[in-house]
Amino acid sequence: MAKFLRINMTTQTATYEDAPAKYALMAGRYLTSTLVADQVPPSAHPLGPNNKIILAPGWATGTSAPTSARISIGAKSPLTGGIKESNAGTGFGQQMARMEIQAIIVEGFPTTPGKFWGVHITQNGATFFPADEYAGKGNYEAWRKIIERFGKKADVMGVGVAGEKRMTNAGICFNDMQGRASRYAGRGGLGAVVGSKGLKFIVIDDTGAPPLRPIADKDLFMQGQKKLTQAIRTHDITKPKGGLNTYGTAVLVNLLNEAGGFPTRNFSSGRFEGAPKIAGEAIFEGNKQRLGKELYNHACSPGCIIQCSNVWHDEKGQEAASCLEYESVWSLGANCGIDSLDDAGELVRLCNDIGLDTIEAGVTLAVAMEAGLAKFGDGKAAIKLMHEIAQGTPLGHILGNGAAFTGRAFGVIRVPTVKGQGLPAYEPRAVKGIGVTYATSPMGADHTAGYTIAPEILGVSGKQDPLALGGKAALSKGFQTATAFIDSTGHCLFIAFPILDIGSGFEGMIEEAAGVLGVQWTAADVTRIGEEILRTERKFNEAAGFTKKDDRLPEFMKYEPLPPHNVVYDVTDEELDSVYKDM
Amino acid sequence: MAKFLRINMTTQTATYEDAPAKYALMAGRYLTSTLVADQVPPSAHPLGPNNKIILAPGWATGTSAPTSARISIGAKSPLTGGIKESNAGTGFGQQMARMEIQAIIVEGFPTTPGKFWGVHITQNGATFFPADEYAGKGNYEAWRKIIERFGKKADVMGVGVAGEKRMTNAGICFNDMQGRASRYAGRGGLGAVVGSKGLKFIVIDDTGAPPLRPIADKDLFMQGQKKLTQAIRTHDITKPKGGLNTYGTAVLVNLLNEAGGFPTRNFSSGRFEGAPKIAGEAIFEGNKQRLGKELYNHACSPGCIIQCSNVWHDEKGQEAASCLEYESVWSLGANCGIDSLDDAGELVRLCNDIGLDTIEAGVTLAVAMEAGLAKFGDGKAAIKLMHEIAQGTPLGHILGNGAAFTGRAFGVIRVPTVKGQGLPAYEPRAVKGIGVTYATSPMGADHTAGYTIAPEILGVSGKQDPLALGGKAALSKGFQTATAFIDSTGHCLFIAFPILDIGSGFEGMIEEAAGVLGVQWTAADVTRIGEEILRTERKFNEAAGFTKKDDRLPEFMKYEPLPPHNVVYDVTDEELDSVYKDM
Repeated sequence: MAKFLRINMTTQTATYEDAPAKYALMAGRYLTSTLVADQVPPSAHPLGPNNKIILAPGWATGTSAPTSARISIGAKSPLTGGIKESNAGTGFGQQMARMEIQAIIVEGFPTTPGKFWGVHITQNGATFFPADEYAGKGNYEAWRKIIERFGKKADVMGVGVAGEKRMTNAGICFNDMQGRASRYAGRGGLGAVVGSKGLKFIVIDDTGAPPLRPIADKDLFMQGQKKLTQAIRTHDITKPKGGLNTYGTAVLVNLLNEAGGFPTRNFSSGRFEGAPKIAGEAIFEGNKQRLGKELYNHACSPGCIIQCSNVWHDEKGQEAASCLEYESVWSLGANCGIDSLDDAGELVRLCNDIGLDTIEAGVTLAVAMEAGLAKFGDGKAAIKLMHEIAQGTPLGHILGNGAAFTGRAFGVIRVPTVKGQGLPAYEPRAVKGIGVTYATSPMGADHTAGYTIAPEILGVSGKQDPLALGGKAALSKGFQTATAFIDSTGHCLFIAFPILDIGSGFEGMIEEAAGVLGVQWTAADVTRIGEEILRTERKFNEAAGFTKKDDRLPEFMKYEPLPPHNVVYDVTDEELDSVYKDM
Repeated sequence: MAKFLRINMTTQTATYEDAPAKYALMAGRYLTSTLVADQVPPSAHPLGPNNKIILAPGWATGTSAPTSARISIGAKSPLTGGIKESNAGTGFGQQMARMEIQAIIVEGFPTTPGKFWGVHITQNGATFFPADEYAGKGNYEAWRKIIERFGKKADVMGVGVAGEKRMTNAGICFNDMQGRASRYAGRGGLGAVVGSKGLKFIVIDDTGAPPLRPIADKDLFMQGQKKLTQAIRTHDITKPKGGLNTYGTAVLVNLLNEAGGFPTRNFSSGRFEGAPKIAGEAIFEGNKQRLGKELYNHACSPGCIIQCSNVWHDEKGQEAASCLEYESVWSLGANCGIDSLDDAGELVRLCNDIGLDTIEAGVTLAVAMEAGLAKFGDGKAAIKLMHEIAQGTPLGHILGNGAAFTGRAFGVIRVPTVKGQGLPAYEPRAVKGIGVTYATSPMGADHTAGYTIAPEILGVSGKQDPLALGGKAALSKGFQTATAFIDSTGHCLFIAFPILDIGSGFEGMIEEAAGVLGVQWTAADVTRIGEEILRTERKFNEAAGFTKKDDRLPEFMKYEPLPPHNVVYDVTDEELDSVYKDM
């Protein structure tokens, strides 16, 4: 893959260029973070002319490697003010890889505010088309129309109304395999950056390209693919009809609730009495009852063998929403005191339709509930608030800008954010290690940046007491480093479960990437590259004005004891600072 | 003055304590900033239980010194996230000083949210009274009622609806000599901190106290008072029927407009075609026409001999608004493209009534206009937007949180703020030195923190070319240092004009302070104390997470040339950083 595609929104031109040698071994997050650091001034206004959007598939994306269809998107985040990588599972990156487009760089600034463009990428080149007719509509309708226009072979990246309006909780949307506008690079408000550039869609169709991307060392690659596939297929969490395939990611609900680490009603408790009603088991049983048969989950993107994506059905057995992730039924469920899967499902559907990150949306709604805008548990009121965002009312502009923004709008103190980004579905007071990740990740509060939940809750890669203090900084550091590498492979983060427990699976991941590139890498390279990525990101954030003071959990978690364990967050600042001290 | 009065809002108790020896020589900003640094954790949520509000009169406040009735208020600012000192001219500090209350410390946190309290301070002690009956009302009505209740001798500090609702552009209001709710410690949103504590009013009545505060060295003090009085009475700007007394601070309008440094329509130009219609001369002439006689200005607070406060009258000759400051007719006039004194006056009246800082309010309205919420120049639409704040609608909550917040709500790029605080009425691209002050002051963008306009525009203390680059960092540093001292004297900053040009006036200011305290101070002590104050403030901000990256003007000023000079802001980052390098 030797090409960068540069899309200039000032001139509406798209040009290919040879990728500089410096970036030859980079892909996914490794490439997006490096390009952002190289090309975006850290002081740039995130929605101004000097920010850029970078898209890059992973090393293994576009190959036959299992579960490898992630695409990374990088920019300076308007939500956190720092560097951001957000990734999604979709065929888009696979088509890029097969066309040997190593990265797409969107830059420049529209000269006609309010006008929207699409870009159509084929083997014949990249062309602009006016996209105003798709603006202002729900994403389900817009994606249906755009796929009708460009054909089912096309994969589509784009933004919804939230991105058009430059709301800082706007995600970047991709279609799933059935064409649903439901796969999101959600976090960090990168959809607002896309919207600020007057870009509505990028449509890609690799017709005419080879079926697989070039692979330098096919033997090494195939050896790796075999090992990783075997590990995924045998691990209890990722195997067919295993935890994820049967219950989806919401299989975690009961586990976290049991551990007292399931944030409830805006992080005022770690246990939700309604948890069983919104758990993965309830989704499975509810679908079974409404459909009259068992429904196992499906792949969100081509080539996934974990297949954890689900569909929730209404009382008539019709499709209601997809996908009800753990994070989503938590954020739009327990965190708002809502115990109805139908209400949570409708909220998920609305997030997808408006173009919002479900985590940030739910954290925001709970802050709004604390401000008195709705009662905890009132799903219908929450749905009404979401419509305000869709309509772009002033209240919608508040809620669409996320939890920290909403907290400030109404003077709320209990605002669970780090670096301006809402905390995901694990209570750091009850699960200390994940708090280290939330606090110190360059991404802001993000469970996927260093998922210590694996050992602290799931017993993957050994079992650690979630409430214990010792060694949690080192634990988080190890996970953050390995994750930065995984985020560059194009693999879904869920391969972490098998590769952490099964040594040959870990080898397989490395061999795949090395095989694609024609290099010899070992576990030491995972650490080396992971640390390089994190250093690049930290350096950008420091140049943007971040300090250790930004590597802290919200103040209230230090003085408000969390039921049922009645614990505060007591990892010391020194320990938090140790994560990046010698990196 | 040996007492601190500690007002605890958790327990509704007020207790006197001996002021620790450490603070014996401190007053005004020197004392508030030191107490905030000592007692407020820099990581505290500004509206949470760990922030405090500190009130302290200056050294000369409560004496017979001229123009010395300023009271300083300190806290961690919810607008900037850093330390804040904001001061106002009012009798309140004089009564404190005569009662020998060196500082009032408001702390704790209400246990019954939504309930408001007042505190009544007399020689018999400090008592709480329920103040809910005054909440939700306009300030003019609330102050009238509270003064009716406690008598005309009382001076009242309090917050309006904006503060009650914890909006981060809420100012702290005091009555003027006629009981108008019109004198503000406006900047930095300190009214939101007061509101967050459930405090609506502090009423003070020193009946029974001596007529003047204790003075250690009366001869030295009187010598200083005489010199300073003489300087004020003879300088062209401050003398009776001089510039300020005749035209008010808005005498600056035509000067800045002529210099191309009068920010117009949200900082998109440095010259406003409607400037003459809103200038101080227009206020004087307008009043003359409507009243049938010349009206010179009056004192905002007891003992002021500059007397620059004005009243604007409507077509029937009735009082419409007070005071139409330069900053206010700019922010609510030119910066919104409004050239009607009646509209600007009504906007000033609304700010006072709601409890908002007029500078931030006008900068906010202009950002809202840029976002398309109203047309530039449409005064009636601007008035309508202000009513949204009063009513506490969602749009009101956006606007009430200031310019940076409004900019983010609607995705506006041209947002003229530093450290989250709106830029005042001098365009830094056209007046380079004031840009250094805006960028580097620990207070956020604040002209009063280092008023280089004196030499750059007014020719006070020598004349410097506003567009020239050389030496502007050193100039700002000198002004910032001297200002920190002046802000501790209790004198209005306008004594700077005479004391900068008349050496004996400068001596007089020092001798007054030294006389009150019984110390021997020289010009070197002004620098020593000024720098100590600034160091304390900077250190707090650094501990709160500020870096050099926060000492920058908004990015757009670096790439958008400003008419009519078509200049960008080109003072280098290195020069900006030199201000605090060796302090």
